[in-house]
Amino acid sequence: MATDCSNLHVNSERLRADFDALSEIGATVGGGVSRLALSNEDLEARSWFADRIEEANLRVKDDEVGNLSGLLSADDPDAKTLMIGSHLDTVPNGGRYDGAIGVLAALECLRRIKETGIKPRYHLEAIDFTDEEGTWKSLFGSSGIVGKISANDISDNLHDNMAFRAALYRAGIMLPELQNARRDPASILGFLELHIEQGKTLHEQQFDIGIVDRIVGRTTYNVVFYGEAAHAGTTTADERHDALQGAAAFIIAAHKRVAEEFPEGVTNCGHVSVTPDSFNVVPAEASLRIEFRHPDTDSLKDMEARLIQLAQDCAGTYRLRVATERVMHRGAERMSGYLARQIENACRAEGIRCTPIASYSGHNAQIMNQMVPAGMIFLPSVDGISHNPREFTDWRHVEIGANVLLRTILQLTV
Amino acid sequence: MATDCSNLHVNSERLRADFDALSEIGATVGGGVSRLALSNEDLEARSWFADRIEEANLRVKDDEVGNLSGLLSADDPDAKTLMIGSHLDTVPNGGRYDGAIGVLAALECLRRIKETGIKPRYHLEAIDFTDEEGTWKSLFGSSGIVGKISANDISDNLHDNMAFRAALYRAGIMLPELQNARRDPASILGFLELHIEQGKTLHEQQFDIGIVDRIVGRTTYNVVFYGEAAHAGTTTADERHDALQGAAAFIIAAHKRVAEEFPEGVTNCGHVSVTPDSFNVVPAEASLRIEFRHPDTDSLKDMEARLIQLAQDCAGTYRLRVATERVMHRGAERMSGYLARQIENACRAEGIRCTPIASYSGHNAQIMNQMVPAGMIFLPSVDGISHNPREFTDWRHVEIGANVLLRTILQLTV
Repeated sequence: MATDCSNLHVNSERLRADFDALSEIGATVGGGVSRLALSNEDLEARSWFADRIEEANLRVKDDEVGNLSGLLSADDPDAKTLMIGSHLDTVPNGGRYDGAIGVLAALECLRRIKETGIKPRYHLEAIDFTDEEGTWKSLFGSSGIVGKISANDISDNLHDNMAFRAALYRAGIMLPELQNARRDPASILGFLELHIEQGKTLHEQQFDIGIVDRIVGRTTYNVVFYGEAAHAGTTTADERHDALQGAAAFIIAAHKRVAEEFPEGVTNCGHVSVTPDSFNVVPAEASLRIEFRHPDTDSLKDMEARLIQLAQDCAGTYRLRVATERVMHRGAERMSGYLARQIENACRAEGIRCTPIASYSGHNAQIMNQMVPAGMIFLPSVDGISHNPREFTDWRHVEIGANVLLRTILQLTV
Repeated sequence: MATDCSNLHVNSERLRADFDALSEIGATVGGGVSRLALSNEDLEARSWFADRIEEANLRVKDDEVGNLSGLLSADDPDAKTLMIGSHLDTVPNGGRYDGAIGVLAALECLRRIKETGIKPRYHLEAIDFTDEEGTWKSLFGSSGIVGKISANDISDNLHDNMAFRAALYRAGIMLPELQNARRDPASILGFLELHIEQGKTLHEQQFDIGIVDRIVGRTTYNVVFYGEAAHAGTTTADERHDALQGAAAFIIAAHKRVAEEFPEGVTNCGHVSVTPDSFNVVPAEASLRIEFRHPDTDSLKDMEARLIQLAQDCAGTYRLRVATERVMHRGAERMSGYLARQIENACRAEGIRCTPIASYSGHNAQIMNQMVPAGMIFLPSVDGISHNPREFTDWRHVEIGANVLLRTILQLTV
């Protein structure tokens, strides 16, 4: 193209004004925000986003799972689409940056390109995905686009889905049409997402940008140790089959083993309970809920096998039985190397410090990556605080990230 | 006295008939029994016991905390009383032997002495203590006799005592009179209790009788570890303040330390819970309820200090805070050496194998021991099973125990 875009940058003041305005929608007293997916606040944020799209003379589009987009079309109607975006929904009393900043930066990039008169060779789409946080079903919108959502998902027998169905209906999302949200992979050039890190790495190591090379896989388990209830006074230590001792040993050993053998992995035991749950009765059952994550799918499977073996070993040591039940599994994603290099080139051109980084939280980019090349740009989170009103990213980093995103878009499409 | 009682034995068939009849009151389908203190079944058992007392031409007596006794008076109205007994109440779906056998054997001893025409120098009292098991307040009846129960105990602000007050009222037990159950220690010669062991020692080591030398003290604690909630994916192991890891380490270490340093002590952690109790959130709080027992009061206090220190150490290791709250403390009791020797002499005369033994469960004898010399005779429990319909003691052992009890009574009073 003839237009010189080597020094094009976003309008930081305009982006900031959008951020401040959006932060008011669902604002909480502590400086946080509550925009649960499909709530009044979420719908108000979408309506506000649609207004911004129209104001920028972009085209408003929504789809069958409720994703809402602003479109800047290429001259060639058969051109592929480069999708850019994130989510406007939040956890209860969450932060202002998580998700929002990615949608607003995508919009700002399209606006800036449009007003500059640049004509990209590909359609550009700035998208807000429905329910990333899982108020109803996590990563719902992106899962719809890759063809993994249908009416069946909202009718399973495991959950009471009535309120979810009502929330969808109220938002104009019809169950029989959900599956039509699926896009043809051949129609999409790729996907880019700007997001805060939600961890401490970039902040502590003073990087301006992280280029996500991998998004962790996550596996969750119910683990139940079975022993024997007994009188806590008259039953000697040797005679006991204390389910809680086995569970406690497993908790300690699981963290130790992950630290020693899977330095890139993390684990958490977030729930424990015992029966009969009485001061003076040796626990007959101890139930745990444990999750583990790894940025490499093979390592994640190794972790799974090792941790199951460990649970059995701990059960053996304390003369217990153990039952392990896999609740959920999502494989790790290796992000597009091509897009990562494009983002890195953009960082070089902007003269800022960047680093490859693994994401330990889930994102729409990992779903999109299952279908098309996807890339992710991380911004530093101060002290790694997220899902919290104290979530904070320096505006300087938001501006840098938006400019890296803009430059990457231009590299790919102009 | 002129009567030769060196070969007097209980009427085993009559005792057995009583046992079988009593086992029907509150019988459960699995062969157990439910006679919760002050329930219809408990009141029915007391009524049945009163009938047996009258049938034997003994005097029926009850007191202000609901204890029910059969009396065989000495000629001298100013004689002291030797009390013998246990309890007729049970835990829900408990066993037939726990408590019952001690009341029935006491009654049988008095009956046998009476019908033989022996005239003891002391009053004899076969007593059923109210609520040993703690349906309402454990060891209620014996605590009343030693002067530790008053209306205030049923009016504290920590519990909803309305149902307890109603249950007492229905049984004819009046709150303002509770304190009058206190007996003058000078009026009591001593207290003897026959009871099943509820542990495995006698059964496994093939003793016929255990002579209780000590009853464990028991201390209970709430222990809460405080950490920091955090995202289980993005928070590295180094950054975490995982309350559950500290709690798990404490559970393991507490059992280990007790086994190593307090071989006569036992501990149990019977409750654990965490907040926020979510798969993917590092636990901010982990609450434990722990109890520990030791037959020596000084060692019990040492255990307490060591375990509190251990909790603090575990908190330190995992960068947590910990709060420890003593919920209950009952010191250990060293039983009367004089009565133990009398029981031992009786065992020798009967030619049966006996051993000194510590009791790891609480008994009315430990309360009575605070005021007067008390002695306890343990019977073997098959496999140590108790508080369970499968609780079982060979009738041969019941008969041996009742005869040892009878001989001890005769040694002390004739």
